[in-house]
This record gives sequence, C-alpha cells and structure tokens, in this order.
Amino acid sequence: MNYPNGIKKIFKINTSNRGMTLEQDLNDTNLYYRNNDIAVIYKKPTPITINKVDYKSRKDAVIKEAHFIIPSTTDYNGIYKGLYIDFEAKETRKNYFPLANIHNHQIEHLRKIRKCGGIGFIIVRFVLKNNTYLLEIDKIDKFLDNSNRKSIPEEYFIKEGYLIKQGYNPYLDYLKIVDIIKESEK
Amino acid sequence: MNYPNGIKKIFKINTSNRGMTLEQDLNDTNLYYRNNDIAVIYKKPTPITINKVDYKSRKDAVIKEAHFIIPSTTDYNGIYKGLYIDFEAKETRKNYFPLANIHNHQIEHLRKIRKCGGIGFIIVRFVLKNNTYLLEIDKIDKFLDNSNRKSIPEEYFIKEGYLIKQGYNPYLDYLKIVDIIKESEK
Repeated sequence: MNYPNGIKKIFKINTSNRGMTLEQDLNDTNLYYRNNDIAVIYKKPTPITINKVDYKSRKDAVIKEAHFIIPSTTDYNGIYKGLYIDFEAKETRKNYFPLANIHNHQIEHLRKIRKCGGIGFIIVRFVLKNNTYLLEIDKIDKFLDNSNRKSIPEEYFIKEGYLIKQGYNPYLDYLKIVDIIKESEK
Repeated sequence: MNYPNGIKKIFKINTSNRGMTLEQDLNDTNLYYRNNDIAVIYKKPTPITINKVDYKSRKDAVIKEAHFIIPSTTDYNGIYKGLYIDFEAKETRKNYFPLANIHNHQIEHLRKIRKCGGIGFIIVRFVLKNNTYLLEIDKIDKFLDNSNRKSIPEEYFIKEGYLIKQGYNPYLDYLKIVDIIKESEK
C-alpha cells in the first residue's frame, strides 16, 4: 500500500509552499508543452471515494468525508506527436528506488500500454543528488526478470534509463528522451 | 458552470443504486476492453481540492473538507490500437443536447487532441429514447460555426454523428465506431 506518498502528494498540491518537487516540475513542464502545442499531457486527479457531501445549494457542495483509494493506473498520461504517453513519477531520498513505491497493477498497466502501441515509463528523481531519470517499462521488466532485489539501484537507471537534463522552458524536457527512444527504434 | 452534473455523477459512483447510466455502461465497456486486451481506457477521477485531511495514522487518512472543481479536461481517455482516445460523456433528458453541459475548455481540449493526432469526441445519450451517439470534435465545431443555437438537436447527431448500438460484452461498443471513422479516413 502506498497511501503516505499519495497523501504527501495531496498536501503538495494544496499548499502554497510547493518547492521544486518532481510533481511541480512535471506540472510546469506539461503546462509548457500544452501552451506551445507540443503535447497534451496531464496529471490525473487523485482518486478518492466520497462518503458524505453537504450541499445546501447545488452550487457550493462541500465534501465532508472522503477517503484516498489506491490508483488503478499511473498519474500521468496524454498524447505527443500522435503517440500515447503514460507514466508514473516518484521521488526517492535513497540512492536506490524502492519497488514498494510503485504498485504491481501500475506495472501491469504500463505493460498493457506498451502492448497497445503506447509508450510507458517511470520518471524517478533521486532527490539528494537531484538526478531525474526516465526508465521504460521493458527495462523495469528486465530488472524484475534478473533480480530478486526489492529496489532498483541508481546504477541501473544510469545504465538502462535516460538522465533527464534540467533546463528552462521546459524545466524537465522528458519528451526529448521520448524522441531519442523513438529514433533509436527506427 | 456544471457542478450539478458533476455532483450527480459522484453520487452515482458512490451509491449501490447505479442503474444503467451512461457512465456505468461506459465503465463496464471499458472494463471489457481492458480485460480482453482491446484497449486501455479509463474514466478519470473527479477533480477536487482538499482543504482538510485528518490523519491520526498515515494508513487511514480521512478527508474532512474538499470541494469539487471544474475539470480542465474530459472524463475519459486512453489508447486503442496505438490511437489516443479522448472523450466526454453526457446524458440529456431533452431531445437536444444543451451546449451548457460541456465546458468551453473541454471543447478546446478536444481540438488540441485532434491537433496532436488523437481522436476526440463526445458521447451523448438521449435518455428518454435511450439513443446514444458519438460525435467527433470537428462535427461539433461545424455546428458551432454554422449555428447560434445553445443546444445541438438530436437530428444533428443522427446526421453528423454515429448511433452506438447497444449489445452485450461490450454493452456499448463505441470503439467499433472509431474503427468506422478511421476506415473512412483512409
């Protein structure tokens, strides 16, 4: 179960003190992509179940009780140059990525995306070094097939993934990596 | 503003008394598509802002105050045969579809999807006759360009859209219409 992450994320969305979290970087980058007609990629709302809604007037309904639920898919999806894009983004303060941070059904979801002709990956930031990598689903599978470890070391991201260079406008140009991957497949 | 619909939708999601609403039909159909590796299409969670979360233990956090916000995108998206799919679904009890039921930024979103090489449309059910149609974004634009009406009559859906036949497994096979559209574009 991964509620703590989910919950932490919520607070990041809803406080003014956002800092430069990976999520914020991705939201800014996706906004840049949309505003410049490069791609249409959004973060999905956090899934919840609502138990109680108070609505005196229909205009201002207030949710009085709701619970976080485990997402059945990944956080981000959209379209770029006709290509379906789907990924999950995570931060880690370790020098490895704990596999507990991603749900099995999210891995399964990314496999299905690949099967259907889309591109599925994870974006992982190693916070202490501020290194952010893109790792494709088939490279995650390659790791799972060849290791019993409960975490993916940064070395594997260096070897099998792509470091996303940070710049300005967009801050985290991960679609440049998608271009490189598509180019290499030709 | 379209909160009433949004709120009504919420209750449908969270009560056992779901009935055969369009949303339920689409969720069942999308589940069928996923289980049979035909497509990966989901309804997005309803967007809300969270003001108060009560979490004694991290495991069982309870949202104590939240508000519905206007969605910036459409309700459904995903991938089918490598094609990015994006649509909004609405029911109407009139014999016309009030344009107030779809936000301008959702129309704008569907235009961007088309620009990026995806397919964008609305699925509208005329509840009293139980007729469900798929209407592409360019046909919506065609209507907006040629009419000052605040609603789209069912006749226009008959003429410019596609009636989605109801069956079993899947109940509402709208991807068959997508096939027809793609075939006609060749």
